[in-house]
Amino acid sequence: MADLVEVADPEDPRLADYRDLRDVELRKHLEAEHGLFLAEGEKVVRRAVEAGYEARSFLMAPRWLDGLADVLDAGAAPVYVLPEALIEEVTGFHVHRGALASLRRRPLPDLTAVLEGARSVLVLEDLVDHTNVGAVFRSGAALGFDAVLLAPRCADPLYRRSIKVGMGAVFSTPWTRLPDWYDALPDLSRRGFTTVALTLGPDSVPIEEAVAGVDRLALVLGSEGHGLSARWEASADRRAVIPMAAGIDSLNVAAASAVACYAAARR
Amino acid sequence: MADLVEVADPEDPRLADYRDLRDVELRKHLEAEHGLFLAEGEKVVRRAVEAGYEARSFLMAPRWLDGLADVLDAGAAPVYVLPEALIEEVTGFHVHRGALASLRRRPLPDLTAVLEGARSVLVLEDLVDHTNVGAVFRSGAALGFDAVLLAPRCADPLYRRSIKVGMGAVFSTPWTRLPDWYDALPDLSRRGFTTVALTLGPDSVPIEEAVAGVDRLALVLGSEGHGLSARWEASADRRAVIPMAAGIDSLNVAAASAVACYAAARR
Ligand SMILES: C[S@@+](CC[C@H](N)C(=O)[O-])C[C@H]1O[C@@H](n2cnc3c(N)ncnc32)[C@H](O)[C@@H]1O
Ligand SMILES: C[S@@+](CC[C@H](N)C(=O)[O-])C[C@H]1O[C@@H](n2cnc3c(N)ncnc32)[C@H](O)[C@@H]1O
Repeated sequence: MADLVEVADPEDPRLADYRDLRDVELRKHLEAEHGLFLAEGEKVVRRAVEAGYEARSFLMAPRWLDGLADVLDAGAAPVYVLPEALIEEVTGFHVHRGALASLRRRPLPDLTAVLEGARSVLVLEDLVDHTNVGAVFRSGAALGFDAVLLAPRCADPLYRRSIKVGMGAVFSTPWTRLPDWYDALPDLSRRGFTTVALTLGPDSVPIEEAVAGVDRLALVLGSEGHGLSARWEASADRRAVIPMAAGIDSLNVAAASAVACYAAARR
Repeated sequence: MADLVEVADPEDPRLADYRDLRDVELRKHLEAEHGLFLAEGEKVVRRAVEAGYEARSFLMAPRWLDGLADVLDAGAAPVYVLPEALIEEVTGFHVHRGALASLRRRPLPDLTAVLEGARSVLVLEDLVDHTNVGAVFRSGAALGFDAVLLAPRCADPLYRRSIKVGMGAVFSTPWTRLPDWYDALPDLSRRGFTTVALTLGPDSVPIEEAVAGVDRLALVLGSEGHGLSARWEASADRRAVIPMAAGIDSLNVAAASAVACYAAARR
Protein backbone atom coordinates (compact mmCIF):
# COMPACT_ATOMS: atom_id res chain seq x y z
CA MET A 1 0.00 0.00 0.00
CA ALA A 2 1.12 3.53 -0.72
CA ASP A 3 2.36 5.55 2.23
CA LEU A 4 -0.09 8.50 2.09
CA VAL A 5 1.04 11.56 4.05
CA GLU A 6 -1.44 14.40 4.36
CA VAL A 7 0.47 17.66 4.38
CA ALA A 8 -1.16 20.90 5.52
CA ASP A 9 1.69 23.38 5.27
CA PRO A 10 3.08 24.26 1.81
CA GLU A 11 6.34 25.18 3.56
CA ASP A 12 6.81 21.61 4.78
CA PRO A 13 10.48 20.71 4.17
CA ARG A 14 9.53 17.29 2.81
CA LEU A 15 8.22 19.09 -0.27
CA ALA A 16 11.63 20.55 -1.13
CA ASP A 17 11.89 18.60 -4.40
CA TYR A 18 8.83 20.43 -5.75
CA ARG A 19 9.68 24.06 -5.09
CA ASP A 20 9.81 26.95 -7.57
CA LEU A 21 9.24 24.94 -10.72
CA ARG A 22 9.25 28.08 -12.79
CA ASP A 23 12.77 29.08 -11.88
CA VAL A 24 14.75 27.23 -14.54
CA GLU A 25 18.20 28.08 -13.19
CA LEU A 26 17.37 27.14 -9.64
CA ARG A 27 15.77 23.91 -10.77
CA LYS A 28 18.76 22.89 -12.90
CA HIS A 29 20.98 23.33 -9.89
CA LEU A 30 18.69 21.53 -7.46
CA GLU A 31 17.99 18.63 -9.82
CA ALA A 32 21.65 18.07 -10.65
CA GLU A 33 22.68 18.24 -7.03
CA HIS A 34 20.10 15.73 -5.86
CA GLY A 35 20.10 13.57 -8.98
CA LEU A 36 16.37 13.95 -9.42
CA PHE A 37 13.87 14.97 -12.06
CA LEU A 38 10.15 15.75 -11.98
CA ALA A 39 7.30 14.22 -13.90
CA GLU A 40 4.01 16.12 -14.17
CA GLY A 41 0.53 14.93 -15.11
CA GLU A 42 -1.10 11.54 -14.61
CA LYS A 43 0.01 10.00 -17.90
CA VAL A 44 3.62 11.11 -17.65
CA VAL A 45 3.97 10.08 -13.97
CA ARG A 46 2.64 6.66 -14.88
CA ARG A 47 4.99 6.30 -17.82
CA ALA A 48 8.03 7.30 -15.78
CA VAL A 49 7.36 4.71 -13.09
CA GLU A 50 6.45 2.03 -15.62
CA ALA A 51 9.73 2.75 -17.41
CA GLY A 52 11.49 1.74 -14.21
CA TYR A 53 12.48 5.10 -12.73
CA GLU A 54 12.51 4.95 -8.96
CA ALA A 55 10.36 7.54 -7.19
CA ARG A 56 11.76 9.62 -4.31
CA SER A 57 8.24 10.83 -3.54
CA PHE A 58 4.94 11.87 -5.10
CA LEU A 59 2.95 15.07 -4.62
CA MET A 60 -0.74 14.67 -5.40
CA ALA A 61 -3.99 16.51 -5.16
CA PRO A 62 -6.53 14.09 -3.62
CA ARG A 63 -8.43 13.48 -6.84
CA TRP A 64 -5.48 11.76 -8.52
CA LEU A 65 -4.99 9.12 -5.86
CA ASP A 66 -7.50 6.65 -7.27
CA GLY A 67 -6.41 6.77 -10.89
CA LEU A 68 -2.75 6.33 -9.96
CA ALA A 69 -3.29 3.87 -7.10
CA ASP A 70 -1.47 1.00 -8.83
CA VAL A 71 1.53 3.24 -9.57
CA LEU A 72 1.66 4.67 -6.04
CA ASP A 73 1.29 1.22 -4.48
CA ALA A 74 4.08 -0.30 -6.54
CA GLY A 75 6.95 1.30 -4.60
CA ALA A 76 7.88 2.51 -1.15
CA ALA A 77 8.03 6.25 -1.86
CA PRO A 78 5.90 8.54 0.30
CA VAL A 79 2.88 10.18 -1.34
CA TYR A 80 2.39 13.71 -0.08
CA VAL A 81 -1.24 14.71 -0.40
CA LEU A 82 -2.09 18.38 -0.61
CA PRO A 83 -5.10 20.35 -1.87
CA GLU A 84 -4.61 21.58 -5.45
CA ALA A 85 -4.45 25.25 -4.39
CA LEU A 86 -1.63 24.55 -1.93
CA ILE A 87 0.30 22.57 -4.53
CA GLU A 88 0.35 25.79 -6.53
CA GLU A 89 1.90 27.56 -3.56
CA VAL A 90 4.69 25.02 -3.42
CA THR A 91 5.47 24.91 -7.11
CA GLY A 92 4.85 28.56 -7.87
CA PHE A 93 2.28 28.10 -10.60
CA HIS A 94 -0.71 26.14 -11.77
CA VAL A 95 0.49 22.58 -12.14
CA HIS A 96 -0.99 20.66 -14.98
CA ARG A 97 -3.59 18.52 -13.25
CA GLY A 98 -1.97 18.39 -9.81
CA ALA A 99 -0.06 15.12 -10.08
CA LEU A 100 3.72 15.21 -9.63
CA ALA A 101 6.50 12.74 -9.01
CA SER A 102 10.12 13.29 -8.03
CA LEU A 103 12.23 10.53 -9.54
CA ARG A 104 15.83 9.41 -9.34
CA ARG A 105 18.02 9.97 -12.38
CA ARG A 106 19.97 6.98 -13.60
CA PRO A 107 23.50 6.84 -14.99
CA LEU A 108 23.32 7.42 -18.75
CA PRO A 109 23.99 4.33 -20.89
CA ASP A 110 27.08 4.35 -23.02
CA LEU A 111 26.95 5.12 -26.70
CA THR A 112 27.59 1.57 -27.85
CA ALA A 113 24.63 0.28 -25.86
CA VAL A 114 22.31 2.99 -27.20
CA LEU A 115 23.33 2.33 -30.81
CA GLU A 116 23.02 -1.44 -30.54
CA GLY A 117 20.56 -2.47 -33.24
CA ALA A 118 19.55 1.13 -34.04
CA ARG A 119 18.96 1.95 -37.69
CA SER A 120 17.77 5.58 -37.42
CA VAL A 121 19.02 8.01 -34.81
CA LEU A 122 18.63 11.72 -34.12
CA VAL A 123 21.60 13.79 -33.01
CA LEU A 124 20.92 17.16 -31.36
CA GLU A 125 23.63 19.75 -31.04
CA ASP A 126 23.09 22.70 -28.70
CA LEU A 127 19.31 23.04 -28.45
CA VAL A 128 18.50 25.44 -25.62
CA ASP A 129 14.73 25.17 -25.45
CA HIS A 130 13.28 22.33 -23.37
CA THR A 131 10.06 22.46 -25.36
CA ASN A 132 11.97 21.75 -28.55
CA VAL A 133 13.93 18.89 -27.02
CA GLY A 134 10.70 17.27 -25.83
CA ALA A 135 9.02 17.81 -29.19
CA VAL A 136 11.94 16.19 -31.04
CA PHE A 137 11.78 13.12 -28.80
CA ARG A 138 8.03 12.82 -29.39
CA SER A 139 8.22 13.15 -33.18
CA GLY A 140 11.25 10.87 -33.39
CA ALA A 141 9.47 8.14 -31.45
CA ALA A 142 6.28 8.55 -33.49
CA LEU A 143 8.11 8.42 -36.80
CA GLY A 144 10.12 5.33 -36.02
CA PHE A 145 13.50 6.65 -34.84
CA ASP A 146 15.37 4.30 -32.53
CA ALA A 147 17.56 6.57 -30.38
CA VAL A 148 18.54 10.16 -29.61
CA LEU A 149 22.09 11.42 -28.99
CA LEU A 150 22.77 14.77 -27.35
CA ALA A 151 25.78 17.03 -27.63
CA PRO A 152 27.35 17.83 -24.25
CA ARG A 153 25.55 21.20 -24.08
CA CYS A 154 22.12 20.27 -25.38
CA ALA A 155 19.23 21.06 -23.00
CA ASP A 156 18.15 18.34 -20.55
CA PRO A 157 15.50 15.91 -21.84
CA LEU A 158 14.56 15.05 -18.25
CA TYR A 159 13.67 18.61 -17.45
CA ARG A 160 9.96 18.79 -16.54
CA ARG A 161 8.96 20.76 -19.67
CA SER A 162 10.86 18.43 -22.01
CA ILE A 163 9.19 15.37 -20.53
CA LYS A 164 5.75 16.89 -20.66
CA VAL A 165 5.98 18.15 -24.23
CA GLY A 166 7.50 14.83 -25.24
CA MET A 167 4.59 12.93 -23.65
CA GLY A 168 7.11 10.73 -21.91
CA ALA A 169 8.87 9.63 -25.13
CA VAL A 170 12.14 10.29 -23.31
CA PHE A 171 11.34 7.26 -21.12
CA SER A 172 10.78 4.87 -24.00
CA THR A 173 13.47 6.08 -26.42
CA PRO A 174 17.07 5.06 -25.69
CA TRP A 175 19.24 8.20 -25.41
CA THR A 176 22.55 9.39 -24.05
CA ARG A 177 25.08 12.25 -24.12
CA LEU A 178 27.89 12.16 -26.63
CA PRO A 179 31.14 12.07 -24.68
CA ASP A 180 33.16 14.09 -27.20
CA TRP A 181 31.72 17.06 -29.06
CA TYR A 182 34.52 17.60 -31.55
CA ASP A 183 34.74 14.09 -32.91
CA ALA A 184 31.10 13.08 -32.44
CA LEU A 185 30.05 12.83 -36.09
CA PRO A 186 33.19 11.15 -37.48
CA ASP A 187 32.85 8.66 -34.62
CA LEU A 188 29.30 7.86 -35.74
CA SER A 189 30.54 7.42 -39.31
CA ARG A 190 33.16 4.97 -38.08
CA ARG A 191 30.37 3.07 -36.36
CA GLY A 192 28.62 2.62 -39.68
CA PHE A 193 26.17 5.53 -39.70
CA THR A 194 25.76 8.01 -42.53
CA THR A 195 25.57 11.37 -40.77
CA VAL A 196 23.25 13.86 -42.46
CA ALA A 197 23.40 17.41 -41.12
CA LEU A 198 20.18 19.43 -41.49
CA THR A 199 21.35 22.86 -42.47
CA LEU A 200 20.60 25.83 -44.69
CA GLY A 201 24.23 25.88 -45.84
CA PRO A 202 25.06 26.30 -49.52
CA ASP A 203 25.97 22.70 -50.36
CA SER A 204 22.85 21.08 -48.89
CA VAL A 205 20.81 18.73 -51.04
CA PRO A 206 17.08 18.14 -50.56
CA ILE A 207 16.48 15.84 -47.58
CA GLU A 208 14.86 13.09 -49.59
CA GLU A 209 17.85 12.85 -51.86
CA ALA A 210 20.25 12.92 -48.90
CA VAL A 211 18.66 9.93 -47.17
CA ALA A 212 17.87 7.86 -50.26
CA GLY A 213 19.31 4.36 -49.97
CA VAL A 214 20.99 5.05 -46.61
CA ASP A 215 20.94 2.11 -44.22
CA ARG A 216 22.10 3.29 -40.79
CA LEU A 217 21.21 6.97 -40.61
CA ALA A 218 22.05 9.74 -38.13
CA LEU A 219 20.05 12.95 -38.68
CA VAL A 220 21.80 15.93 -37.10
CA LEU A 221 19.97 19.09 -35.96
CA GLY A 222 21.31 22.45 -34.78
CA SER A 223 20.36 25.02 -32.17
CA GLU A 224 17.45 27.45 -32.41
CA GLY A 225 19.52 30.57 -32.80
CA HIS A 226 22.65 29.83 -34.75
CA GLY A 227 22.00 26.41 -36.18
CA LEU A 228 24.79 23.85 -36.35
CA SER A 229 28.39 24.66 -35.44
CA ALA A 230 30.79 24.92 -38.36
CA ARG A 231 32.59 21.84 -37.05
CA TRP A 232 29.51 19.63 -37.04
CA GLU A 233 28.29 20.96 -40.35
CA ALA A 234 31.66 20.22 -41.99
CA SER A 235 32.29 16.88 -40.32
CA ALA A 236 28.95 15.33 -41.33
CA ASP A 237 28.96 12.94 -44.28
CA ARG A 238 26.20 14.90 -46.04
CA ARG A 239 24.29 18.13 -45.67
CA ALA A 240 20.54 18.30 -46.34
CA VAL A 241 17.89 20.98 -46.56
CA ILE A 242 14.11 20.95 -46.33
CA PRO A 243 13.17 23.12 -49.30
CA MET A 244 11.32 26.29 -48.22
CA ALA A 245 9.29 29.07 -49.82
CA ALA A 246 11.17 32.24 -50.75
CA GLY A 247 11.72 34.81 -48.02
CA ILE A 248 11.50 32.41 -45.06
CA ASP A 249 14.42 32.21 -42.58
CA SER A 250 14.04 28.66 -41.35
CA LEU A 251 11.73 26.13 -39.82
CA ASN A 252 11.56 25.73 -36.07
CA VAL A 253 13.93 22.90 -35.12
CA ALA A 254 11.08 20.70 -33.87
CA ALA A 255 9.20 21.14 -37.14
CA ALA A 256 12.40 20.46 -39.10
CA SER A 257 12.99 17.26 -37.13
CA ALA A 258 9.43 16.05 -37.76
CA VAL A 259 9.72 16.63 -41.51
CA ALA A 260 13.20 15.09 -41.69
CA CYS A 261 12.14 12.02 -39.70
CA TYR A 262 9.10 11.62 -41.94
CA ALA A 263 11.24 11.80 -45.08
CA ALA A 264 13.82 9.45 -43.55
CA ALA A 265 11.22 6.94 -42.40
CA ARG A 266 10.31 6.42 -46.06
CA ARG A 267 13.86 5.98 -47.38
CA MET B 1 11.32 61.77 -36.09
CA ALA B 2 10.14 59.40 -33.41
CA ASP B 3 8.54 60.92 -30.34
CA LEU B 4 10.85 59.55 -27.61
CA VAL B 5 9.39 59.73 -24.11
CA GLU B 6 11.68 58.77 -21.25
CA VAL B 7 9.62 57.12 -18.56
CA ALA B 8 10.95 56.66 -15.02
CA ASP B 9 8.01 55.10 -13.23
CA PRO B 10 6.92 51.57 -14.21
CA GLU B 11 3.46 52.46 -12.87
CA ASP B 12 3.06 55.21 -15.46
CA PRO B 13 -0.49 54.90 -16.88
CA ARG B 14 0.77 55.40 -20.44
CA LEU B 15 2.27 51.91 -20.19
CA ALA B 16 -1.12 50.27 -19.62
CA ASP B 17 -0.96 48.31 -22.90
CA TYR B 18 2.11 46.44 -21.66
CA ARG B 19 1.01 45.23 -18.25
CA ASP B 20 0.95 41.68 -16.90
CA LEU B 21 1.92 39.91 -20.08
CA ARG B 22 1.93 36.59 -18.31
CA ASP B 23 -1.71 36.71 -17.33
CA VAL B 24 -3.34 35.16 -20.40
CA GLU B 25 -6.94 35.73 -19.32
CA LEU B 26 -6.39 39.34 -18.39
CA ARG B 27 -4.51 40.00 -21.62
CA LYS B 28 -7.25 38.45 -23.78
CA HIS B 29 -9.76 40.76 -22.17
CA LEU B 30 -7.60 43.86 -22.40
CA GLU B 31 -6.54 43.24 -25.99
CA ALA B 32 -10.07 42.56 -27.20
CA GLU B 33 -11.45 45.60 -25.43
CA HIS B 34 -8.85 47.97 -26.84
CA GLY B 35 -8.45 46.27 -30.20
CA LEU B 36 -4.71 45.90 -29.75
CA PHE B 37 -2.04 43.25 -29.89
CA LEU B 38 1.61 43.16 -28.82
CA ALA B 39 4.71 42.37 -30.82
CA GLU B 40 7.91 41.41 -28.99
CA GLY B 41 11.52 41.38 -30.16
CA GLU B 42 13.27 43.52 -32.75
CA LYS B 43 12.57 41.31 -35.76
CA VAL B 44 8.90 40.79 -34.99
CA VAL B 45 8.25 44.47 -34.18
CA ARG B 46 9.84 45.39 -37.49
CA ARG B 47 7.78 42.84 -39.41
CA ALA B 48 4.51 44.01 -37.84
CA VAL B 49 5.08 47.63 -38.79
CA GLU B 50 6.36 46.75 -42.24
CA ALA B 51 3.22 44.63 -42.76
CA GLY B 52 1.22 47.84 -42.28
CA TYR B 53 -0.05 47.46 -38.74
CA GLU B 54 -0.44 50.83 -37.07
CA ALA B 55 1.39 51.26 -33.78
CA ARG B 56 -0.38 52.71 -30.73
CA SER B 57 2.98 53.01 -28.97
CA PHE B 58 6.37 51.33 -28.50
CA LEU B 59 8.13 50.33 -25.29
CA MET B 60 11.89 50.06 -25.69
CA ALA B 61 15.02 49.57 -23.67
CA PRO B 62 17.51 52.23 -24.84
CA ARG B 63 19.74 49.81 -26.71
CA TRP B 64 17.03 48.99 -29.28
CA LEU B 65 16.44 52.57 -30.39
CA ASP B 66 19.19 52.65 -32.99
CA GLY B 67 18.45 49.36 -34.72
CA LEU B 68 14.74 50.17 -34.97
CA ALA B 69 15.14 53.91 -35.74
CA ASP B 70 13.62 53.66 -39.24
CA VAL B 71 10.61 51.75 -37.88
CA LEU B 72 10.07 54.15 -34.98
CA ASP B 73 10.46 57.19 -37.21
CA ALA B 74 7.98 55.95 -39.79
CA GLY B 75 4.86 56.72 -37.72
CA ALA B 76 3.54 59.12 -35.13
CA ALA B 77 3.27 56.70 -32.20
CA PRO B 78 5.07 57.61 -28.97
CA VAL B 79 8.14 55.57 -28.04
CA TYR B 80 8.33 54.99 -24.29
CA VAL B 81 11.92 54.45 -23.25
CA LEU B 82 12.60 52.56 -20.06
CA PRO B 83 15.60 50.67 -18.65
CA GLU B 84 15.39 46.93 -19.30
CA ALA B 85 14.95 46.08 -15.61
CA LEU B 86 11.95 48.42 -15.30
CA ILE B 87 10.37 46.96 -18.43
CA GLU B 88 10.34 43.68 -16.56
CA GLU B 89 8.44 45.33 -13.74
CA VAL B 90 5.78 46.53 -16.17
CA THR B 91 5.35 43.30 -18.08
CA GLY B 92 5.83 40.93 -15.17
CA PHE B 93 8.69 38.88 -16.65
CA HIS B 94 11.86 38.98 -18.64
CA VAL B 95 10.88 40.32 -22.03
CA HIS B 96 12.70 38.84 -24.96
CA ARG B 97 15.25 41.51 -25.79
CA GLY B 98 13.33 44.50 -24.40
CA ALA B 99 11.62 45.71 -27.58
CA LEU B 100 7.83 45.84 -27.62
CA ALA B 101 5.13 47.42 -29.74
CA SER B 102 1.42 47.79 -29.10
CA LEU B 103 -0.40 47.67 -32.44
CA ARG B 104 -3.95 48.17 -33.64
CA ARG B 105 -5.86 45.12 -34.79
CA ARG B 106 -7.53 45.38 -38.18
CA PRO B 107 -10.89 44.02 -39.28
CA LEU B 108 -10.40 40.46 -40.54
CA PRO B 109 -10.68 40.02 -44.31
CA ASP B 110 -13.57 37.97 -45.59
CA LEU B 111 -13.12 34.39 -46.63
CA THR B 112 -13.45 35.03 -50.35
CA ALA B 113 -10.63 37.56 -50.26
CA VAL B 114 -8.35 35.22 -48.32
CA LEU B 115 -8.99 32.31 -50.68
CA GLU B 116 -8.52 34.36 -53.87
CA GLY B 117 -5.75 32.64 -55.82
CA ALA B 118 -4.86 30.29 -52.94
CA ARG B 119 -3.97 26.72 -53.87
CA SER B 120 -3.02 25.29 -50.46
CA VAL B 121 -4.64 26.34 -47.21
CA LEU B 122 -4.51 25.20 -43.59
CA VAL B 123 -7.68 25.00 -41.52
CA LEU B 124 -7.35 24.87 -37.74
CA GLU B 125 -10.20 23.77 -35.55
CA ASP B 126 -10.05 24.44 -31.81
CA LEU B 127 -6.34 24.71 -31.05
CA VAL B 128 -5.92 26.07 -27.54
CA ASP B 129 -2.17 26.57 -27.34
CA HIS B 130 -0.76 29.83 -28.73
CA THR B 131 2.62 28.20 -29.26
CA ASN B 132 1.05 25.64 -31.55
CA VAL B 133 -0.89 28.24 -33.51
CA GLY B 134 2.29 30.24 -34.08
CA ALA B 135 4.26 27.14 -35.03
CA VAL B 136 1.61 26.12 -37.59
CA PHE B 137 1.73 29.56 -39.22
CA ARG B 138 5.52 29.39 -39.40
CA SER B 139 5.67 25.91 -40.93
CA GLY B 140 2.81 26.65 -43.31
CA ALA B 141 4.55 29.76 -44.63
CA ALA B 142 7.89 27.95 -44.92
CA LEU B 143 6.38 25.00 -46.77
CA GLY B 144 4.46 27.06 -49.31
CA PHE B 145 0.93 27.27 -47.91
CA ASP B 146 -1.02 30.32 -49.04
CA ALA B 147 -3.51 30.99 -46.24
CA VAL B 148 -4.76 29.89 -42.82
CA LEU B 149 -8.41 29.63 -41.75
CA LEU B 150 -9.42 29.43 -38.11
CA ALA B 151 -12.52 27.94 -36.54
CA PRO B 152 -14.43 30.42 -34.39
CA ARG B 153 -12.86 29.08 -31.18
CA CYS B 154 -9.26 28.55 -32.29
CA ALA B 155 -6.66 30.43 -30.20
CA ASP B 156 -5.66 33.94 -31.33
CA PRO B 157 -2.76 34.11 -33.83
CA LEU B 158 -2.14 37.73 -32.81
CA TYR B 159 -1.51 36.79 -29.22
CA ARG B 160 2.08 37.70 -28.29
CA ARG B 161 3.27 34.07 -27.97
CA SER B 162 1.71 33.03 -31.27
CA ILE B 163 3.39 35.89 -33.11
CA LYS B 164 6.75 35.24 -31.52
CA VAL B 165 6.80 31.49 -32.12
CA GLY B 166 5.54 32.13 -35.66
CA MET B 167 8.40 34.57 -36.29
CA GLY B 168 5.84 37.02 -37.64
CA ALA B 169 4.45 34.62 -40.28
CA VAL B 170 1.00 35.72 -39.15
CA PHE B 171 1.75 39.13 -40.70
CA SER B 172 2.72 37.78 -44.10
CA THR B 173 0.20 34.94 -44.42
CA PRO B 174 -3.41 35.85 -45.30
CA TRP B 175 -5.74 34.47 -42.64
CA THR B 176 -9.22 34.90 -41.24
CA ARG B 177 -11.88 33.32 -39.00
CA LEU B 178 -14.45 31.02 -40.52
CA PRO B 179 -17.83 32.61 -39.97
CA ASP B 180 -19.72 29.33 -39.59
CA TRP B 181 -18.31 26.35 -37.72
CA TYR B 182 -20.89 23.75 -38.69
CA ASP B 183 -20.79 24.23 -42.43
CA ALA B 184 -17.14 25.33 -42.75
CA LEU B 185 -15.75 22.30 -44.60
CA PRO B 186 -18.65 21.71 -47.02
CA ASP B 187 -18.45 25.43 -47.82
CA LEU B 188 -14.76 25.03 -48.72
CA SER B 189 -15.63 22.04 -50.90
CA ARG B 190 -18.23 24.15 -52.73
CA ARG B 191 -15.51 26.72 -53.33
CA GLY B 192 -13.43 24.11 -55.13
CA PHE B 193 -11.16 22.85 -52.35
CA THR B 194 -10.61 19.21 -51.49
CA THR B 195 -10.79 19.15 -47.68
CA VAL B 196 -8.44 16.60 -46.08
CA ALA B 197 -8.92 16.06 -42.34
CA LEU B 198 -5.78 14.96 -40.46
CA THR B 199 -7.04 12.39 -38.03
CA LEU B 200 -6.26 9.07 -36.42
CA GLY B 201 -9.77 7.83 -37.25
CA PRO B 202 -10.28 4.35 -38.70
CA ASP B 203 -10.91 5.29 -42.33
CA SER B 204 -7.85 7.53 -42.76
CA VAL B 205 -5.48 6.88 -45.66
CA PRO B 206 -1.78 7.80 -45.59
CA ILE B 207 -1.34 11.54 -46.13
CA GLU B 208 0.61 11.19 -49.37
CA GLU B 209 -2.14 9.15 -50.93
CA ALA B 210 -4.81 11.57 -49.68
CA VAL B 211 -3.23 14.62 -51.35
CA ALA B 212 -2.05 12.94 -54.56
CA GLY B 213 -3.30 14.81 -57.59
CA VAL B 214 -5.33 17.31 -55.57
CA ASP B 215 -5.36 20.82 -57.02
CA ARG B 216 -6.88 23.19 -54.46
CA LEU B 217 -6.20 21.63 -51.07
CA ALA B 218 -7.43 22.43 -47.54
CA LEU B 219 -5.57 20.52 -44.80
CA VAL B 220 -7.62 20.39 -41.60
CA LEU B 221 -6.07 19.97 -38.13
CA GLY B 222 -7.70 19.35 -34.76
CA SER B 223 -7.13 20.44 -31.18
CA GLU B 224 -4.36 19.23 -28.88
CA GLY B 225 -6.56 17.31 -26.52
CA HIS B 226 -9.45 15.75 -28.38
CA GLY B 227 -8.48 16.18 -32.00
CA LEU B 228 -11.10 17.10 -34.60
CA SER B 229 -14.79 17.30 -33.78
CA ALA B 230 -16.93 14.48 -35.15
CA ARG B 231 -18.68 17.01 -37.39
CA TRP B 232 -15.49 18.24 -39.04
CA GLU B 233 -14.06 14.78 -39.33
CA ALA B 234 -17.21 13.50 -41.05
CA SER B 235 -17.80 16.53 -43.26
CA ALA B 236 -14.30 16.58 -44.80
CA ASP B 237 -13.91 15.13 -48.29
CA ARG B 238 -11.10 12.81 -47.14
CA ARG B 239 -9.41 11.68 -43.95
CA ALA B 240 -5.64 11.23 -43.78
CA VAL B 241 -3.11 9.89 -41.30
CA ILE B 242 0.62 10.32 -40.85
CA PRO B 243 1.71 6.73 -40.28
CA MET B 244 3.27 6.27 -36.82
CA ALA B 245 5.28 3.65 -34.94
CA ALA B 246 3.34 1.21 -32.78
CA GLY B 247 2.38 2.35 -29.29
CA ILE B 248 2.46 6.11 -29.97
CA ASP B 249 -0.65 8.20 -29.24
CA SER B 250 -0.20 11.01 -31.75
CA LEU B 251 2.09 13.70 -33.02
CA ASN B 252 1.93 17.17 -31.58
CA VAL B 253 -0.37 19.23 -33.83
CA ALA B 254 2.48 21.54 -34.91
CA ALA B 255 4.64 18.55 -35.90
CA ALA B 256 1.67 16.99 -37.71
CA SER B 257 1.08 20.21 -39.63
CA ALA B 258 4.74 20.44 -40.68
CA VAL B 259 4.77 16.86 -41.97
CA ALA B 260 1.41 17.24 -43.72
CA CYS B 261 2.46 20.53 -45.36
CA TYR B 262 5.72 18.92 -46.49
CA ALA B 263 3.86 15.97 -48.02
CA ALA B 264 1.29 18.28 -49.60
CA ALA B 265 3.90 20.65 -51.03
CA ARG B 266 5.17 17.73 -53.10
CA ARG B 267 1.78 16.57 -54.41
C1 LIG C 1 15.77 27.52 -36.37
S1 LIG C 1 16.95 26.59 -37.22
C2 LIG C 1 18.43 27.55 -37.11
C3 LIG C 1 18.51 28.55 -38.16
C4 LIG C 1 19.88 29.19 -38.26
N1 LIG C 1 19.71 30.61 -38.24
C5 LIG C 1 20.58 28.71 -39.52
O1 LIG C 1 20.68 29.49 -40.47
O2 LIG C 1 20.99 27.56 -39.57
C6 LIG C 1 17.35 25.28 -36.14
C7 LIG C 1 17.77 24.01 -36.81
O3 LIG C 1 16.66 23.46 -37.51
C8 LIG C 1 17.10 22.82 -38.68
N2 LIG C 1 16.39 23.45 -39.82
C9 LIG C 1 15.47 24.43 -39.77
N3 LIG C 1 14.99 24.70 -40.99
C10 LIG C 1 15.61 23.87 -41.85
C11 LIG C 1 15.52 23.63 -43.26
N4 LIG C 1 14.67 24.31 -44.03
N5 LIG C 1 16.33 22.69 -43.79
C12 LIG C 1 17.18 21.98 -43.02
N6 LIG C 1 17.29 22.16 -41.69
C13 LIG C 1 16.51 23.08 -41.10
C14 LIG C 1 18.59 22.93 -38.73
O4 LIG C 1 19.18 21.77 -38.17
C15 LIG C 1 18.87 24.13 -37.84
O5 LIG C 1 20.14 24.07 -37.26
C1 LIG D 1 -2.34 15.83 -30.53
S1 LIG D 1 -3.36 15.45 -31.87
C2 LIG D 1 -4.90 15.02 -31.08
C3 LIG D 1 -4.95 13.60 -30.75
C4 LIG D 1 -6.34 13.15 -30.35
N1 LIG D 1 -6.26 12.49 -29.08
C5 LIG D 1 -6.88 12.23 -31.43
O1 LIG D 1 -6.95 11.02 -31.18
O2 LIG D 1 -7.23 12.74 -32.50
C6 LIG D 1 -3.80 17.02 -32.53
C7 LIG D 1 -4.08 17.00 -34.01
O3 LIG D 1 -2.88 16.72 -34.72
C8 LIG D 1 -3.16 15.97 -35.88
N2 LIG D 1 -2.39 14.71 -35.80
C9 LIG D 1 -1.53 14.34 -34.84
N3 LIG D 1 -0.94 13.17 -35.14
C10 LIG D 1 -1.45 12.79 -36.32
C11 LIG D 1 -1.21 11.68 -37.18
N4 LIG D 1 -0.34 10.72 -36.89
N5 LIG D 1 -1.92 11.61 -38.34
C12 LIG D 1 -2.80 12.57 -38.67
N6 LIG D 1 -3.05 13.65 -37.90
C13 LIG D 1 -2.38 13.76 -36.75
C14 LIG D 1 -4.67 15.78 -35.94
O4 LIG D 1 -5.22 16.80 -36.75
C15 LIG D 1 -5.08 15.97 -34.49
O5 LIG D 1 -6.41 16.45 -34.39
